[in-house]
Amino acid sequence: MSDTPTTTPHTPADPTAASTPATPVAAPVAGADDLLRAVQAGVETIDLGRQLRVGMPQSPNHPQFWHTLPRRHGDMVRSDGSSAANDMITTGTHVGTHIDALAHVSFDGKLHGGADAAAACIGGKYEEHGVHTIAPMLRRGVLLDVAGHLGLTHCEGGYEITVADLEATAERAGVTVGAGDVVLVRSGWGARFAEGAAYVGGASGVPGVGEAGAVWLAERGVHAAGADTIAFERLAPGGGHALLPAHRVLLVEAGIYIVEALDLEGLAAAGWAEFTFVLVPMNIFGATGSPVRPLALRSSDTQTQTQGQTQSGAVS
Amino acid sequence: MSDTPTTTPHTPADPTAASTPATPVAAPVAGADDLLRAVQAGVETIDLGRQLRVGMPQSPNHPQFWHTLPRRHGDMVRSDGSSAANDMITTGTHVGTHIDALAHVSFDGKLHGGADAAAACIGGKYEEHGVHTIAPMLRRGVLLDVAGHLGLTHCEGGYEITVADLEATAERAGVTVGAGDVVLVRSGWGARFAEGAAYVGGASGVPGVGEAGAVWLAERGVHAAGADTIAFERLAPGGGHALLPAHRVLLVEAGIYIVEALDLEGLAAAGWAEFTFVLVPMNIFGATGSPVRPLALRSSDTQTQTQGQTQSGAVS
Amino acid sequence: MSDTPTTTPHTPADPTAASTPATPVAAPVAGADDLLRAVQAGVETIDLGRQLRVGMPQSPNHPQFWHTLPRRHGDMVRSDGSSAANDMITTGTHVGTHIDALAHVSFDGKLHGGADAAAACIGGKYEEHGVHTIAPMLRRGVLLDVAGHLGLTHCEGGYEITVADLEATAERAGVTVGAGDVVLVRSGWGARFAEGAAYVGGASGVPGVGEAGAVWLAERGVHAAGADTIAFERLAPGGGHALLPAHRVLLVEAGIYIVEALDLEGLAAAGWAEFTFVLVPMNIFGATGSPVRPLALRSSDTQTQTQGQTQSGAVS
Amino acid sequence: MSDTPTTTPHTPADPTAASTPATPVAAPVAGADDLLRAVQAGVETIDLGRQLRVGMPQSPNHPQFWHTLPRRHGDMVRSDGSSAANDMITTGTHVGTHIDALAHVSFDGKLHGGADAAAACIGGKYEEHGVHTIAPMLRRGVLLDVAGHLGLTHCEGGYEITVADLEATAERAGVTVGAGDVVLVRSGWGARFAEGAAYVGGASGVPGVGEAGAVWLAERGVHAAGADTIAFERLAPGGGHALLPAHRVLLVEAGIYIVEALDLEGLAAAGWAEFTFVLVPMNIFGATGSPVRPLALRSSDTQTQTQGQTQSGAVS
Repeated sequence: MSDTPTTTPHTPADPTAASTPATPVAAPVAGADDLLRAVQAGVETIDLGRQLRVGMPQSPNHPQFWHTLPRRHGDMVRSDGSSAANDMITTGTHVGTHIDALAHVSFDGKLHGGADAAAACIGGKYEEHGVHTIAPMLRRGVLLDVAGHLGLTHCEGGYEITVADLEATAERAGVTVGAGDVVLVRSGWGARFAEGAAYVGGASGVPGVGEAGAVWLAERGVHAAGADTIAFERLAPGGGHALLPAHRVLLVEAGIYIVEALDLEGLAAAGWAEFTFVLVPMNIFGATGSPVRPLALRSSDTQTQTQGQTQSGAVS
Repeated sequence: MSDTPTTTPHTPADPTAASTPATPVAAPVAGADDLLRAVQAGVETIDLGRQLRVGMPQSPNHPQFWHTLPRRHGDMVRSDGSSAANDMITTGTHVGTHIDALAHVSFDGKLHGGADAAAACIGGKYEEHGVHTIAPMLRRGVLLDVAGHLGLTHCEGGYEITVADLEATAERAGVTVGAGDVVLVRSGWGARFAEGAAYVGGASGVPGVGEAGAVWLAERGVHAAGADTIAFERLAPGGGHALLPAHRVLLVEAGIYIVEALDLEGLAAAGWAEFTFVLVPMNIFGATGSPVRPLALRSSDTQTQTQGQTQSGAVS
Repeated sequence: MSDTPTTTPHTPADPTAASTPATPVAAPVAGADDLLRAVQAGVETIDLGRQLRVGMPQSPNHPQFWHTLPRRHGDMVRSDGSSAANDMITTGTHVGTHIDALAHVSFDGKLHGGADAAAACIGGKYEEHGVHTIAPMLRRGVLLDVAGHLGLTHCEGGYEITVADLEATAERAGVTVGAGDVVLVRSGWGARFAEGAAYVGGASGVPGVGEAGAVWLAERGVHAAGADTIAFERLAPGGGHALLPAHRVLLVEAGIYIVEALDLEGLAAAGWAEFTFVLVPMNIFGATGSPVRPLALRSSDTQTQTQGQTQSGAVS
Repeated sequence: MSDTPTTTPHTPADPTAASTPATPVAAPVAGADDLLRAVQAGVETIDLGRQLRVGMPQSPNHPQFWHTLPRRHGDMVRSDGSSAANDMITTGTHVGTHIDALAHVSFDGKLHGGADAAAACIGGKYEEHGVHTIAPMLRRGVLLDVAGHLGLTHCEGGYEITVADLEATAERAGVTVGAGDVVLVRSGWGARFAEGAAYVGGASGVPGVGEAGAVWLAERGVHAAGADTIAFERLAPGGGHALLPAHRVLLVEAGIYIVEALDLEGLAAAGWAEFTFVLVPMNIFGATGSPVRPLALRSSDTQTQTQGQTQSGAVS
């Protein structure tokens, strides 16, 4: 191992950058397995999670995200001249980019698999289908950039993305959707995240798949489905979250996880239709969901062959 | 891609298992890059994060983790027969398995890089060295199982793990510690997590590296260092968190992140000394730390050659 | 004391009633002091506080009120057949009906009395002017029903209540405003509390006193001043909380507490211009404010002489 | 009304004082009713509530009290030179000095009055017996200073205060306990509040009435009963909150509210056996309890006749 570090661990990533600089390519390590060799050969990443900020748009059904510093530097100093600052956060779990556990939704009083939804809450925890039962994901990811395929900045509020849209988007991108994949559907609506209430879309509605699109995804045996909107599926103008048929199809009937409020803008700009998808939920015992920060990953050389470097980045 | 799903997405992982079942080996995907090919060839994982449960041991300096369900199934039913349950969590960020951002600790009024610690808090947020500046990690990980090397269930409370301990442990395991690596130091104390207050170790002290061990890690240019204890470094019996020299060396002087309260029991049992390490902090703007759920990953065939399958698992 | 209870302690107050039924008149107690004799002779009360409900209107500057039940009956049963349900709340302190401590506002970097505002925060607490320094209030209260005097349901958004309005209202009601009093200014805007965002009044502005009215109150040496609006003072249409001159005059210059988001509808309907005012802040060490539930009280016979019973009530 | 204020509203109470200085005696106000006249003649008060501080002792069954400042002076300045600091609190409701609503406890699946305890939670709120149904209290209060009567600093942990203790204490103090009263039972254990875990009393147990004492209170038709301990009633050494028969008798069978963690030290030192008791719960819709800050009040002249001024105080 070289005495000259090839990384600069004391230089954190630029917080204003959409993605992080590429991992320096280290010398191959004897004994590394295929995975570690691929990692060490260089991986670029695109961050699919929204930054958690006080005041960001979120559904009013869920406790608001809040962050505060109970202790700051200057509040106390230890005898050795050091001090520590710390935080408190309070939040719902369906806030920011997040994943829905199967326990989140019931239909006709039943959870996925037929368990009685009311009885499934044992001592205030969903033991069977809580978010702690979702294994961390390291899987093939597929982007279906519907807005891009349709040549739109974003689909209109209330637009239902059809099966034909999904199939045409996949075909043009040259990707198939297969069993075990994580499929991300981009409506382009995510570009409006910074607009706040407009992103929530109460009056305008929000684009997304409907029941038919959800059935199409379930038929393909996907492991999880995500979108760049607050509720994954199409919301009718003025309709709020009153009817969520795609949630029923995916969570209750098919046992497929849903990821919401993804940032898919970088992924679309980079043109990645296929990638390695990483998602690690918080392991909150008995909860119905979790904030997450999913990543899309690619080997750097693949990237070099198919894309410019400018839109992508890397984990550090 | 087969029409017959080889995964069963509607069967979440057994929540009582220490690790999750192996990823089914999918057929190779044409066009996949090296990373995705390695992933699809089968990866096993060991979860290094503690489950977040109300009442788990944590430092009394930080707001307690709490989870509750504002709405349960049965509280309301929508017109279509569906219902949604949801959560509220409140917590410190240095709670459960977590990462310290560089903004967490100051020395002589300065943060890493020399910024004035009091002035670095802009509008209640640490903009420069907050946890949002930590890029997601996909790196070589190294386990230094000091307790295992010493033949102990766990090092005693207050024991300072020496440089000699670190070097002998690495040598026996046949691993080197290099620039950019994430190094995890196991004292064995983590096996006491279920004991609650004993894990916090106020009276007994807690084992860990001291200033010398931290300097050793910094000299090697590691990217992050972790341990299976509540404060990473050695705590003197009865001393609490009054003096934290390793925090000063790593966070303030060297700009190296610290990961605490890791679960290293499965990793030690599996005998993985080298692995791919994944850590994705919550992207909380301006915070001093974040709960995390790090993963250790290995290609399945590597694992097969060196280890039995029983102690390991895989992401799904 | 009679063997026949004159109260029915097991019949809690009707939660839907605006006020509670009159205290039964107990037989005089030998040895009671003047205060207790007055209490036992019968007291009627009007509740001036808003009920704390998830989703009620509040300033977006402050953490949202949230209430949830971590444990409900049915979640556990003790060996003796009993169970306990409990709560978690998270909230700002300037939420619902609340009081501003002097530490809430600074001007030109100074708190009331000239203390440096930044330095006044010791270890994350406002020791000198925090809400814990506000003594519970049992004082003469005066209602200035400006909307009633002007013959309006409510003053318009952005209307500045003038000194002439205050003086004419007091004169017609036959009350003076004196040193040590608590003066409540009714704009009628409080009747819009149930309208949610309209009550907050971002676009419309909110009626209230301006700098001149605040000076008038300060000149009279009042102990505290309150209103039925979210920020006590006049807010310009579209102006939000950008400029708060009455806060400066009262909190910073005069050291007079401010009570906001009062429910003054019942008090105005009952026609009480003078009453005993009770306010007990939460004793939160170092906080800048507190939710409160102030009461207006009157001896029942006074009330009988001047008012019908229908609009008033009593503590139980 | 004099031009010379007789109060100094800009001089907040000394936060370190056990009680606040006496209300200045104002000139009588023409038209004031008996209550206001008694108030203006001068009232002394003793604060029966504990200050809410991070880290204070509380039951581990309930979310911990936490207070933090999201915004401090210096974080932002408005264009007019002003700034505002604010707070976030998160807490259980059975924390600090608090009141139990009837919805807090069930027995054999029933709440007070026979309602099914599980079904009583409508949409996550206890509508029938929640804390919002407790009317503010302005009542005769009686102190039974059992520790004082027994000549003890405090009763031992686990000691059950007997009916004979209650009756002998009342007799010596020359007070009767009557219908509608609020009765406060002092064990002296409250003096240990500053000791933290010792006050909670897990290992030692805690003194208090048992089932027999609760029946005695219920037979007298009291409106509420309070104590200076964490659970009102006797806790067996090592027993925790496993069995709470007095809660069953009072809350479930008799519909009598319970007030816990009172500070009765000042009241005992002042020798007030009878007083006016004020308690105003937070009006949290559907909650099982509320932090409270009860007050004991006396007319100043009564006080002058029976006690020195040093132990007492007044609202301001």
